Amino acid sequence: MGVSTGNSSGAFVSGPLAMADAALFTDLYELTMAAAFLRQGLAGPASFSLFARRLPAGRGFLVAAGLEDALEYLRAFRFTHSGLEFLRSLGRFEPAFLDHLRGLRFTGEVRAVPEGTLVFADEPLLEVTAPILEAQLVETALLNLLHGQTVLASKAARSVLAADGRALAEFGLRRSHGTDAGMKAARAALIAGFDSTSNVLAGLTWGLPLSGTMAHSFVTAFATEHEAFRAYARAFPDSAVLLLDTYDTVAAARKAVEVARDLAAAGHHLAGVRLDSGDLAALSRDVRAILDAGGFQAVKVLVSGGLDEHDVAALLAQGAPIDGFGIGTRLTTSADAPSVDLVYKLVRFDGRDVLKLSPGKRTWVGAKQVVRRVGPDGRLAGDTLALAEEAVPADATGLLEPVMRGGELLRPHPPLAEIRARCAAELAALPDDVRRLTDPAPYLAMPSERLRERQRAAEAGVSPGRVGAPESPLSEAKGA
Amino acid sequence: MGVSTGNSSGAFVSGPLAMADAALFTDLYELTMAAAFLRQGLAGPASFSLFARRLPAGRGFLVAAGLEDALEYLRAFRFTHSGLEFLRSLGRFEPAFLDHLRGLRFTGEVRAVPEGTLVFADEPLLEVTAPILEAQLVETALLNLLHGQTVLASKAARSVLAADGRALAEFGLRRSHGTDAGMKAARAALIAGFDSTSNVLAGLTWGLPLSGTMAHSFVTAFATEHEAFRAYARAFPDSAVLLLDTYDTVAAARKAVEVARDLAAAGHHLAGVRLDSGDLAALSRDVRAILDAGGFQAVKVLVSGGLDEHDVAALLAQGAPIDGFGIGTRLTTSADAPSVDLVYKLVRFDGRDVLKLSPGKRTWVGAKQVVRRVGPDGRLAGDTLALAEEAVPADATGLLEPVMRGGELLRPHPPLAEIRARCAAELAALPDDVRRLTDPAPYLAMPSERLRERQRAAEAGVSPGRVGAPESPLSEAKGA
Repeated sequence: MGVSTGNSSGAFVSGPLAMADAALFTDLYELTMAAAFLRQGLAGPASFSLFARRLPAGRGFLVAAGLEDALEYLRAFRFTHSGLEFLRSLGRFEPAFLDHLRGLRFTGEVRAVPEGTLVFADEPLLEVTAPILEAQLVETALLNLLHGQTVLASKAARSVLAADGRALAEFGLRRSHGTDAGMKAARAALIAGFDSTSNVLAGLTWGLPLSGTMAHSFVTAFATEHEAFRAYARAFPDSAVLLLDTYDTVAAARKAVEVARDLAAAGHHLAGVRLDSGDLAALSRDVRAILDAGGFQAVKVLVSGGLDEHDVAALLAQGAPIDGFGIGTRLTTSADAPSVDLVYKLVRFDGRDVLKLSPGKRTWVGAKQVVRRVGPDGRLAGDTLALAEEAVPADATGLLEPVMRGGELLRPHPPLAEIRARCAAELAALPDDVRRLTDPAPYLAMPSERLRERQRAAEAGVSPGRVGAPESPLSEAKGA
Repeated sequence: MGVSTGNSSGAFVSGPLAMADAALFTDLYELTMAAAFLRQGLAGPASFSLFARRLPAGRGFLVAAGLEDALEYLRAFRFTHSGLEFLRSLGRFEPAFLDHLRGLRFTGEVRAVPEGTLVFADEPLLEVTAPILEAQLVETALLNLLHGQTVLASKAARSVLAADGRALAEFGLRRSHGTDAGMKAARAALIAGFDSTSNVLAGLTWGLPLSGTMAHSFVTAFATEHEAFRAYARAFPDSAVLLLDTYDTVAAARKAVEVARDLAAAGHHLAGVRLDSGDLAALSRDVRAILDAGGFQAVKVLVSGGLDEHDVAALLAQGAPIDGFGIGTRLTTSADAPSVDLVYKLVRFDGRDVLKLSPGKRTWVGAKQVVRRVGPDGRLAGDTLALAEEAVPADATGLLEPVMRGGELLRPHPPLAEIRARCAAELAALPDDVRRLTDPAPYLAMPSERLRERQRAAEAGVSPGRVGAPESPLSEAKGA
């Protein structure tokens, strides 16, 4: 077991989830439903679509991410002896069900859009087709794994659009939601186009470029600011970035020039300075002027301090001479939209289309394909939400690709560089009005004619016995 | 190594952080600063305070949580051979520094408020006193571990206040930020007073009560809704909760009555029904009336569907006959305040008080104690932010307790039940105006006279050489 039991002492992270525990990382209802399916003999193939019911307010697109983890979860899916003993101890499940779980593996098929692809409302990031019991049991983990990284990559991409080529460093490990999110944020930011992360373990795990400067505590630990700067420059004579705002930013910039002179005299160079508070537009100009007057045009001016993509855009719009941005908390918590309404819905079971009619939560029937067209200008020209069995026209791309069959991977996971390149290409192809940071134009997947027909047939075919009565005129439910 | 390297295939969660990796779970700058401290011979004892610079907008209090993980991290803190090889490969660090890291352990002292304690702006949740290199290196992980659970517990407590005794289930695993946050959310919700979680692995890990019902996919998998209800009731004849809103909630309630009758005839009972969309106030009344008319007053009405504490309060204010709430995404992402401005600041080094003057980010000097008084009415009567060396009056409590010395735990971790009881007592003692969900009154820690004196002395003692110039009239920095 990768987690401690009983008294939780010993757990550095509460869930250092080992593969062995994967199947219990689920909502209880997945297990109770599975037990009822088994008891009832429901074992036919089910197709589930995982998609965003709508985009968060103010957001124009999502960056699909997390597929690698999702597929590794499916490969690792099994119930351990201790996990089954725990389920038995709950007193809810029949022995026949627990025996069934003992040998259970995920044997299904998965189609998914590659990580780094832009997706919009109603477009599946992933579809599972498997015996219904298996397909149901994996719901919670698939949502968790795809949701977390998709939220983070989608947020990071907005800073990338705003920075317009300036360097971006992900700085938010300290305030991510736990250890896993801290790791995922670094990966997601690099996928979206960030240049580096401060997270050392993420650097080790994925080979990401690392960056870092100094904290205010370093400055305050020395008798004077100047002494702190000199000490740091001695330790890192070619990579030092000095933090200027502990006491007074402009005065500190003058000390930085002195340190830069000392370094230059010794054949080294000051790499940069960082501003972390105050009026960053005005201060960056003052600091740039002081550095330039000292002859240090090559010393970079970096800024940070509770920034998000709107701050980045505003600073650059003011012409602030900033070479790079450190983006932390607001990125790694996706502060304006910490969740996406990502759902996993049964769309076909045992040869029959299914749908739900809950107010505000109607679903499109059937396994699907997202057909994407690019116009002659290289920009996205419209998506069609089609049935999986529809042919993809030669001038378009079907985004969902088979990635798993019989529970086995169909291809190696793509390297992070490939995912990052895909995301960059997709961002470059975004229409300008969809790319806007504020009030972006909606870019929707229009259903194909055949999908509309199948939907009409399914809605007409919902028997009075199933729905009981015409839908009441309820107010729309708000988003989950 | 608990994480995969290079190609990340094999990682179910990107950071199944094994204890062995703990020291690399950090920002790069902690390591560069440590290298500069070592090179400069700075090794004196440093005290760092970890506190919220301010509360999130609209929030009246925080629930301190995450201490157990933080202490286990400190116990596990070390650099592995492979971790050191990775650092060496970066080409940034001198061999002497890497050699120093090889044998490094956390040998310091920690004082902290117990988990489940309510804290307010400027009140330390934890203070570390250790050789400066150690105290600096643990910053990122301590912030991450305490921030995550404190954010989640603080959010959960608001639903507990709103629910006024109704049952609360944590349902948000699918949209938490990754696996670790999903686990922590369950623990944090139970600390704050939730009754159960849907997270099976959290149930196993901490012995938390589990709850769950069924999903819409279960209903749509059957030819009719009635058949789905019967199948579920057969599988769980004494614990079934039927989901009513897949097609039409009121019609489904009538079918639930039929199922309840069948169960009663066989000596069993329907446990409850759940509404997940629509006008929950109106529908809960309709459904309650249908159940009551059928003679099933004991069948509980549960609701869910994107709810937060404001929805809970509004539904109960309307007199909606609701027995319990499932709270998901908005809880587990702390949707209105996904981060807290939690910081870790050097307050004393080598016998000298230190402070920073950055606009909007000034800090109080010195190691501290939070002195809390309870009035004759049993309500919190005011906190004093005092120096650690000040005596705590007999009629007050000092919240920060020694929990680690010489890197060793001073006591076993308290059981979750004790933490939960502490939180319940503290919530009961909250003044009504601070407890309000909307626009709560501020409850601040007032500095003691001795702290004010020490602060004045430190500010006066900041040499011109340190600050360089009087502070510029900068606009206030916004929060990180």
